[in-house]
Amino acid sequence: MADTQVEEVAQKIQEVVLDENGQPLSKNALKKLEKERLKKERSEKDAKARQEKAQAQSSAAVDYSKDFYGKKPINRSEDRPGIKRESLADISAARAGEKVWIRARVQTSRPTGNKMCFFQFRQNSSTIQGLVVFDDTAISKQMVKFAQNISSESIVLVEGTIAKPLEPVKSCTVQDAEIMITQLFVTSEAQGRLPFSLEDASRPEAEFDREDTQFAKVNLHTRLENRVFDLRTITNQAIFRLQHAVCKLFRDFLESKGFMEIHTPKILGAASEGGANVFKVKYFDTEAFLAQSPQFYKQMVVCGDFERVFEIGSVFRAENSFTHRHMTEFIGLDLEMAFEEHYHEILDVFDELFVHIFTGLETTYAADLEVVHRQYPFEKFEFLPKTLRLEYHEAVALLRENGVEMGDYDDLSTEVERKLGQLVKEKYKTDFFMLDKFPLEVRPFYTMPDPKNPKYSNSYDFFMRGEEILSGAQRIHDPDYLIERAQVHGVDPSSIKSYVDAFRMGAPPHGGGGIGLERVLFFYLNLGNIRRASLFPRDPRRLLP
Amino acid sequence: MADTQVEEVAQKIQEVVLDENGQPLSKNALKKLEKERLKKERSEKDAKARQEKAQAQSSAAVDYSKDFYGKKPINRSEDRPGIKRESLADISAARAGEKVWIRARVQTSRPTGNKMCFFQFRQNSSTIQGLVVFDDTAISKQMVKFAQNISSESIVLVEGTIAKPLEPVKSCTVQDAEIMITQLFVTSEAQGRLPFSLEDASRPEAEFDREDTQFAKVNLHTRLENRVFDLRTITNQAIFRLQHAVCKLFRDFLESKGFMEIHTPKILGAASEGGANVFKVKYFDTEAFLAQSPQFYKQMVVCGDFERVFEIGSVFRAENSFTHRHMTEFIGLDLEMAFEEHYHEILDVFDELFVHIFTGLETTYAADLEVVHRQYPFEKFEFLPKTLRLEYHEAVALLRENGVEMGDYDDLSTEVERKLGQLVKEKYKTDFFMLDKFPLEVRPFYTMPDPKNPKYSNSYDFFMRGEEILSGAQRIHDPDYLIERAQVHGVDPSSIKSYVDAFRMGAPPHGGGGIGLERVLFFYLNLGNIRRASLFPRDPRRLLP
Repeated sequence: MADTQVEEVAQKIQEVVLDENGQPLSKNALKKLEKERLKKERSEKDAKARQEKAQAQSSAAVDYSKDFYGKKPINRSEDRPGIKRESLADISAARAGEKVWIRARVQTSRPTGNKMCFFQFRQNSSTIQGLVVFDDTAISKQMVKFAQNISSESIVLVEGTIAKPLEPVKSCTVQDAEIMITQLFVTSEAQGRLPFSLEDASRPEAEFDREDTQFAKVNLHTRLENRVFDLRTITNQAIFRLQHAVCKLFRDFLESKGFMEIHTPKILGAASEGGANVFKVKYFDTEAFLAQSPQFYKQMVVCGDFERVFEIGSVFRAENSFTHRHMTEFIGLDLEMAFEEHYHEILDVFDELFVHIFTGLETTYAADLEVVHRQYPFEKFEFLPKTLRLEYHEAVALLRENGVEMGDYDDLSTEVERKLGQLVKEKYKTDFFMLDKFPLEVRPFYTMPDPKNPKYSNSYDFFMRGEEILSGAQRIHDPDYLIERAQVHGVDPSSIKSYVDAFRMGAPPHGGGGIGLERVLFFYLNLGNIRRASLFPRDPRRLLP
Repeated sequence: MADTQVEEVAQKIQEVVLDENGQPLSKNALKKLEKERLKKERSEKDAKARQEKAQAQSSAAVDYSKDFYGKKPINRSEDRPGIKRESLADISAARAGEKVWIRARVQTSRPTGNKMCFFQFRQNSSTIQGLVVFDDTAISKQMVKFAQNISSESIVLVEGTIAKPLEPVKSCTVQDAEIMITQLFVTSEAQGRLPFSLEDASRPEAEFDREDTQFAKVNLHTRLENRVFDLRTITNQAIFRLQHAVCKLFRDFLESKGFMEIHTPKILGAASEGGANVFKVKYFDTEAFLAQSPQFYKQMVVCGDFERVFEIGSVFRAENSFTHRHMTEFIGLDLEMAFEEHYHEILDVFDELFVHIFTGLETTYAADLEVVHRQYPFEKFEFLPKTLRLEYHEAVALLRENGVEMGDYDDLSTEVERKLGQLVKEKYKTDFFMLDKFPLEVRPFYTMPDPKNPKYSNSYDFFMRGEEILSGAQRIHDPDYLIERAQVHGVDPSSIKSYVDAFRMGAPPHGGGGIGLERVLFFYLNLGNIRRASLFPRDPRRLLP
């Protein structure tokens, strides 16, 4: 400030500033005063600038947290220090004070000012709250800022101390503990915008259906287009653990009954059952077909003296349909067995098998059922300790009593099957039953006719909640009779030669059935669409991902 | 005989027949004599004819066994009397005197005169001797004749009394007991000539190789053409029980380590890895591909937060090769897992897994191993409690020390792999080892390079008896880096878009590997050809049965 300025200021101040006797100060006195004030102001400003500069320099140099956060380079297995990662499910208030490392996804983060950040971390179906809180010695503001900028779904490596929150963390599965973060590294960053929010994708269907809903429903198409991301919802985590469970229960039971696991070929030289709905494969210089069922081959294995066999494998159907219960590829749980006297021996095995599966789900996998139930509510699946077996004519009678018009030997439409399921549920209190003795005419050529009434056959379907999940029969094990029946059905015996030949060297009476794995899940869990029960479903329009 | 004849005869006899005084008999005396003789002859003949007629009539009318043997009509499940069938394996001398029913195949039958027939009955891998012996009250000659005419491989239903034979029946697995047959029914007749003898088909290979052998060797082609029949040999019964065992041991171990079973699609919209050796499928109006490996999909499932997964499923390779170790379709035992620090965590899991499988085979399935060993002799499979891990450069050094000329980063030929197997066996006394740190250049684009030497990679193969049975690696889990590496390998990133996209929403470091089920059996059991380890093998020329 130049002296002229000082003079001007002194002039103005003179008008208002009085000395201790109430008289205005002299101009010189004022000048002096202003000079002193300016000097002080300047020195204070300088000091502040210096201080700020020093502070800035010092904090950049000694961000006291800088080694405790950041983005890690791609893990190329550089080293193996052997630090244990904790499972979220194992953390509880009882371990408060313990320091742990966890690897988890950032499900959500919530910044609070510039000194705090709340996280919800997720591992599979478990979630826990984590906090980054600024302090003078361990957590710098830079670290807080870094934390606040981590994108959802990134994978982080966290060190922290287990703490007991003031109130239970209701939004997390671990409610009585949280993590006070001491180190925080991003090991894999989620790029770009998420296709939808996992929260929305996990919401009960009913919440979208309310008139006043503010939520964006994630439709099935969007989910399947982004299936890898969609699989991360706790509901999907549970659905596929349950899929695993059904396979495991199926296998464990059958192994305990002397069944052996087999693997039959999926590329076939002849299209079974006349070639309808079969995918063709270019096979070197010739043409081959994808197996529509392992049935012929598991029968052949039975003729090869492996008398009780099962297979869990892919089944392919070139059906150009888009219903809620058809896919072009699914997993068949198949079994085939020789029997001694009567094909009902097979039904006895199936009966015990299904009761084993349903009971196993209810007991061992109750938590997963509960998770799915929250999103896709379903009535408890009812079943009887000894499964109801209805004969076809009884079902027809029951349907007729309830207004359905049909002939004795008519096939059941999907709609009528559902109606039957309802009627059976009302009358017998079960969501699962076996329908035996189907009309011969509606079954494939290899089905053994009923010995007493040639209009019926030794064949059966099983139903869950009124939808078919298994089809099976006693098969014809006599080669000449098999050819006779094939001809009746217009099947050229030469097209099934290697199948028929399997019975020429002696064959035991036998039968079995195939269960659609995804159907069992779909109907048990009431998922609304079979695609929800398949990791990467296939239909005529979906081949990706 | 007319009188003139009598006279002629009398004339002749007169020349040689003398009376009691040494004088020839008079003609009349001779005539008389001859008449008496003829009368006696006639009456004897008549008596015999009458007796025979009476006997024949009586036995036809009262074949006292007629209800106890015969050919049964096709079992159509007419009734279910609930008669228990005994398992051959459960029969022993301790139960002598007990009456039992068995269902079995006639392996061989040996008639002895017209009053007896010996049988060798077979159930899976068990055999027992059975006897039909004529007696006056229970077993008629007709029944014996029926028994003698039953064709081998027919299925019979037998009632009999357990007896203790005078000497052990060395040709059967049940040696201290036999069945004295009281009822014998054919329930399914083997038609025509058997393609080969099961006895020949079960003979140790060495017996055919002897110079003086009188046996007809059953070659692999003939076996596979008649596979259903071939599967009945006790050796094949054992091989496929062992196949079941490997799957079971694999699964049980992984389940105990928190792995979940998954099922990924086999029909794909994009050919992985550039489209070589991939089968094409006509998929409605478009084209699809058969999965050459579940790898991309199991990685995607890991990115979907199922962190430890396994799959047992079909794998398809359109390789136009006819080696002893290639098939166009086989069963992959695959696993994939996220790891925390280092891909050697995966090798640790594999290590424990294989030791679990090998130990399980030796202990629980020793009897089956012994059966296979008789036909296909193999040296005991040696393995270490902690599996040997060699690095590639160490293997190269070992090979060079032993005269193999190769560069540091050259791939291993099949021949060199075998040589390495021998050298490792000599040096480390193991038939199983892991070869780690393969040269980057010989591995697929998604393989993570080694962090210290970019010429190597974080990838590995496992070997059994010098043959590769598993290939695996740490995979690149960063999408940008993955694209970079794909381009280096000439893979168009747009062809793998949905795969790369799986890593964009954050992906944990992960890896895994795929085991060829049939290879494990083939090499463990030294079967000489992988086709022997597959129920219905597929190669470029074999699609049937």
